[in-house]
Amino acid sequence: MRILVTGANGFLGRGLAAKLTAAYPDASRLVLTDTAFEGPQSDGMEQKAGDLCDPEFQKELLEPGFDLVFHLASVPGSLAEKEPELGHQVNLLAPLALARGAAARCSGARFVFASSIAVYGDLNGLAVTPATQPAPLLTYGAHKLMLEIQLADMTRRGELRAVSLRFPGLVARPPVESGHGSAFMSQIFHRIAAGQPFDCPVPAASTCWWLSREAAVTALLHAARIAPAPGQTVIQLPVLHASLKAMSEAIAGETGMKADVHWGNDEVLQRIFGAMPPLDATPALALGFQADADLGTLTRAALSGEYL
Amino acid sequence: MRILVTGANGFLGRGLAAKLTAAYPDASRLVLTDTAFEGPQSDGMEQKAGDLCDPEFQKELLEPGFDLVFHLASVPGSLAEKEPELGHQVNLLAPLALARGAAARCSGARFVFASSIAVYGDLNGLAVTPATQPAPLLTYGAHKLMLEIQLADMTRRGELRAVSLRFPGLVARPPVESGHGSAFMSQIFHRIAAGQPFDCPVPAASTCWWLSREAAVTALLHAARIAPAPGQTVIQLPVLHASLKAMSEAIAGETGMKADVHWGNDEVLQRIFGAMPPLDATPALALGFQADADLGTLTRAALSGEYL
Repeated sequence: MRILVTGANGFLGRGLAAKLTAAYPDASRLVLTDTAFEGPQSDGMEQKAGDLCDPEFQKELLEPGFDLVFHLASVPGSLAEKEPELGHQVNLLAPLALARGAAARCSGARFVFASSIAVYGDLNGLAVTPATQPAPLLTYGAHKLMLEIQLADMTRRGELRAVSLRFPGLVARPPVESGHGSAFMSQIFHRIAAGQPFDCPVPAASTCWWLSREAAVTALLHAARIAPAPGQTVIQLPVLHASLKAMSEAIAGETGMKADVHWGNDEVLQRIFGAMPPLDATPALALGFQADADLGTLTRAALSGEYL
Repeated sequence: MRILVTGANGFLGRGLAAKLTAAYPDASRLVLTDTAFEGPQSDGMEQKAGDLCDPEFQKELLEPGFDLVFHLASVPGSLAEKEPELGHQVNLLAPLALARGAAARCSGARFVFASSIAVYGDLNGLAVTPATQPAPLLTYGAHKLMLEIQLADMTRRGELRAVSLRFPGLVARPPVESGHGSAFMSQIFHRIAAGQPFDCPVPAASTCWWLSREAAVTALLHAARIAPAPGQTVIQLPVLHASLKAMSEAIAGETGMKADVHWGNDEVLQRIFGAMPPLDATPALALGFQADADLGTLTRAALSGEYL
């Protein structure tokens, strides 16, 4: 088993890399790639720094062939919105080429793609079900959706066996990370746990979809092992659906601190990240995907991160 | 007004080109492009033969800037299925670059894209409505859908004002044209009109969506003039929904010939082209798009083509 992880120095990628050796003890090759790496090379894993948008680097990277690719690399939504050419290269053209390059060298390889709930766009409060039509309102979400379609088609053709997982904003990202409009969803954990006041940009009644990095990594590893039916390559992961108020109380309860939050009223942020409706994730649950067990469990997972 | 038509030597493109001077008498520039041209250059229109997949040709083509682009160029579904690299270049990468190139030189340009009902995939007999989720079963349809998403996003950003029209197989293509699995939908017109027997590959009860090239050209010209609301860039055109039996009787009635058809049982072709359900095209009708008036009108339009 030869395994490649892109975006391996990112928040999700570092979490996945930390579990990879244990998950695949017999892997013959574990290659991590990203534009740069902060930490040292881990035993048994190769780090390859480079730009997936560079065809020469991508060719060299894929040359040995991989049986399993986790494609996590992307630029965040707000950055892609500001720099459309960067988003077009990193979030669309590079992954299109990566998927085709991986298939050309290893026909039928597994390809697990980190998609996003940004594909949905404005949900107008309607519950998300398998019948929900995506209508992205960010270029980031449009690109994720286009990749989902490409991967579904390559799977139909037998070129890859792809699974696209629609992730919500993961918690809790490191306090210093930026570029994500959903940053408040992570900051609230750090501030309350540290006993600090928090100026939350959106109202207490805002409802979000919550998933810890731990649960996200479990989902990635699970996606690499299941065999979804043709036509079922896109999976909306189960999440916890809770208001910021409920989340803040759970964090306070779990950490024994007081939730000292000032609630703001940023309508744009609330519309994009804080107006998430109920979710019917029946297909994902039937395939064995799971959300965090409850808000307390989610809080422990969110605060346990070492940001390796 | 500077106007560009791609795929201008194709069946739909020739039909559009024939109406362009009359539709835009004050246009300062009318440029037709295709890989090659059969006919001579028409007065007032420039023919530029070349390959849109060649970045140099595309750059030179777009250099002057266009206020309106009709993007009709593509390779047909069955060919794209057999030659995926060709399909990827012509039906995905070239139009992505064309749309971005057009926007870069003329921000907010109108861009009318010939999409396809191939985006839907297997409809299982369920009526198509604005809530129908596309799930393409051909790479051709997957690429059309990806382009629709890209163009919707560019319209949201104000880079283009795009309209994607979902066309069914148009009738009646010239008898010699090939590469389309839906060829039988055109052949039936020619054979009955010529008093010849026709071996139809699918059963008489097969239901199709019918649209003449004349109605399709009218739709393209209309699309260039309307201002659809943001989020309404994708339009399923109204069509006539009729069985092959009903269509064959209308052709016979209109031409005064006998319908001498032997009905086959090709299940694959029937599933893809001959199992079309009812269509609710309310949004398109509200925007002023129209199908052919009835099967007789459609027959006259289908048989009037000069394949200029």
